[in-house]
Amino acid sequence: MTAPVRIEADYLIETPCNPRATAEAIAGEQSSGTFVAVPGETPELKERAAARVERIELLDPLPAPSLPVARPVDPGGPWRRARVTLSWPLDNIGPSLPNLVTTVAGNLWELRQLTGLRLLDLRLPGEFASAYAGPKFGVAGTRELTGVYGRPLIGTIIKPSVGLSAAVTASLVATLCDAGIDFIKDDELQSDGPSCPFNERVRAVMRVVNDHAERAGKKVMLAFNLTGEIDQMRRRHDFVLTHGGSCVMASINSVGLAGMIELGRHTQLPIHAHRNGWGALNRHPALGWEFAAWQKIWRLAGADHMHVNGIGNKFSESDDSVIASAKATLTPLFEQRPCVAMPVFSSGQTAAQALPTYHALGSTDLIFAAGGGILAHPDGPGAGVAELRAAWDDAVSRKAPYSP
Amino acid sequence: MTAPVRIEADYLIETPCNPRATAEAIAGEQSSGTFVAVPGETPELKERAAARVERIELLDPLPAPSLPVARPVDPGGPWRRARVTLSWPLDNIGPSLPNLVTTVAGNLWELRQLTGLRLLDLRLPGEFASAYAGPKFGVAGTRELTGVYGRPLIGTIIKPSVGLSAAVTASLVATLCDAGIDFIKDDELQSDGPSCPFNERVRAVMRVVNDHAERAGKKVMLAFNLTGEIDQMRRRHDFVLTHGGSCVMASINSVGLAGMIELGRHTQLPIHAHRNGWGALNRHPALGWEFAAWQKIWRLAGADHMHVNGIGNKFSESDDSVIASAKATLTPLFEQRPCVAMPVFSSGQTAAQALPTYHALGSTDLIFAAGGGILAHPDGPGAGVAELRAAWDDAVSRKAPYSP
Repeated sequence: MTAPVRIEADYLIETPCNPRATAEAIAGEQSSGTFVAVPGETPELKERAAARVERIELLDPLPAPSLPVARPVDPGGPWRRARVTLSWPLDNIGPSLPNLVTTVAGNLWELRQLTGLRLLDLRLPGEFASAYAGPKFGVAGTRELTGVYGRPLIGTIIKPSVGLSAAVTASLVATLCDAGIDFIKDDELQSDGPSCPFNERVRAVMRVVNDHAERAGKKVMLAFNLTGEIDQMRRRHDFVLTHGGSCVMASINSVGLAGMIELGRHTQLPIHAHRNGWGALNRHPALGWEFAAWQKIWRLAGADHMHVNGIGNKFSESDDSVIASAKATLTPLFEQRPCVAMPVFSSGQTAAQALPTYHALGSTDLIFAAGGGILAHPDGPGAGVAELRAAWDDAVSRKAPYSP
Repeated sequence: MTAPVRIEADYLIETPCNPRATAEAIAGEQSSGTFVAVPGETPELKERAAARVERIELLDPLPAPSLPVARPVDPGGPWRRARVTLSWPLDNIGPSLPNLVTTVAGNLWELRQLTGLRLLDLRLPGEFASAYAGPKFGVAGTRELTGVYGRPLIGTIIKPSVGLSAAVTASLVATLCDAGIDFIKDDELQSDGPSCPFNERVRAVMRVVNDHAERAGKKVMLAFNLTGEIDQMRRRHDFVLTHGGSCVMASINSVGLAGMIELGRHTQLPIHAHRNGWGALNRHPALGWEFAAWQKIWRLAGADHMHVNGIGNKFSESDDSVIASAKATLTPLFEQRPCVAMPVFSSGQTAAQALPTYHALGSTDLIFAAGGGILAHPDGPGAGVAELRAAWDDAVSRKAPYSP
């Protein structure tokens, strides 16, 4: 938990070459390496700027390469695998998230010595904690804004994904407010489309949410999808704030890092970070990013809520991976600045997932978003929400260890 | 070349299920689909907002799945492959690049019916051409700023990657200017690190570049790496402009789309787009993005130069893939607004690659960046540059078809 002095990154590497030499090649490529000696490349410079191989742990080799190489360095196998830790001096880049990404995840996936490369985790010097906004609300701020304590926020998503008018959206939100929901999110496909302009939607929906808050004393948190360009996002955020809204949502892969950093600095509302597109970076086990590494960057940029899929989801991800992701977002980043983000469970979630989710996560600090289980409940949305809350109350009240 | 009315995307899909049903599932997931019928989901809405499967072309099946699935829909094979075209009404999102990315490359990689999914190409309605800055310079503007016509720009990269002081960088640039170079780029690992602050580097380097321009009548184009946050990038761009610089460089995967759009609108200089990190999105042939699709988004955002690797490169990419990428950046995006970007060839390039590159590309509209071939040339950098120019002159002068 003590922040390191140097930037550290853990990788899974796979190579037909010597794993240590391969790790050294990555370190060279990503710091002071040159393919030929040039003027100015002094031993002092090497000492100051070179990345280091800190640790190598050999893993079982594979009989076939995971990724193709056009001109293999070695046509035969076996393909050796190792878990490698590299480190860089902070002064190579300073505490800059965009330049961190180029350093730890830049021109290295393509190296032809590698038939697999996955960034597993990151550890950052404390200077990053001071340099970035981080989540301004996180778990505590989200609970304060919603008044929900001791259990997950019960959430849902506005469907159909795209095509509803502002008025129809607002009437759907009215139904959900009456049903006792805590949290509603826009679909990621609907931001400011011509058939449902953002401002019109916010105006119509917040009228419903504010009316309900006055009547029922409960302000439902609605994550308005403001995904767009920088100025658009700032304007949309301000519009939500002015109309009494309490959350904004952005598709982080579509906005990108500099945009999210800007939104993170600007925001006065929690940022609900939608990770659509993530599968392209994650789905092959020998390529791309582990969520543990990836989510740290977005939390530092300002994400208050992070999507983690759900147990028994309709996608390709295993339950173990989902739970590891949720635990990652709840694990402090720095001792002085934990930057904890609230994990969002979604995708085919029903009352049946409450107990296994609670058992596996050991926490109620999450948003539990169900779709069909609420709106299509045979006894109506109110019964759908009540059933989810009861399932979570039951899960939390059980003292005995859960067995599936 | 006529712009379509709807947004169109081509995919490679791989699935143990029926390919048409799988394509329909993607279309549903990414438009008006709901997993249960909800109020407001009318036939009119479906008609207005639904994505369509426009074409399916079956390809050879595979005996094993390319990507793992935690809970396979069908444990047996074969894994059927198809090239699929989907389309969306523009009005679902309007001409918004960030929302386009969520629509064509959002929550679909994870679908468990899929054991492979790759976005191959995109075709966009003309409204996108009007909505975005596009490359403000492209090939013509870059040639005008450098005064180089009828041949590639001969370029090189400042190495070591990181750790040189501003003064040493400037003296290296002086050597390269004297050698007759056309184009120099910062390393992507060096933006504004404490040991080589951006402004200090620009000041020292531009003194050399401007002096050389006065003496020799030739302004060398230097792509200063301004990768960072939005305000930092704007300030750094303005600083380069004020000091007479003629190019800025950004790591597009590290900055992200909203940041690059902002830079594209703000810039008065060509944007040299570095694609480090690209391998994570591209290296598995059944996952992620083809360059043909990906580069269109960045060109619209404002990229004037796009990295495409090089023939016989030191990385894992095939020559065919490199040439296809370069041809893609030179292919007009829209009839009225071609948005052509200049491809940048790099990675182990020497005089030996001039002829095969020209033969395969059929154009001299490129930046040909060599490292060791210039700075480590036995007769000095001047001889290195002269050799590269001679090799290109020779390639262009040959009338007969090239045979390797």
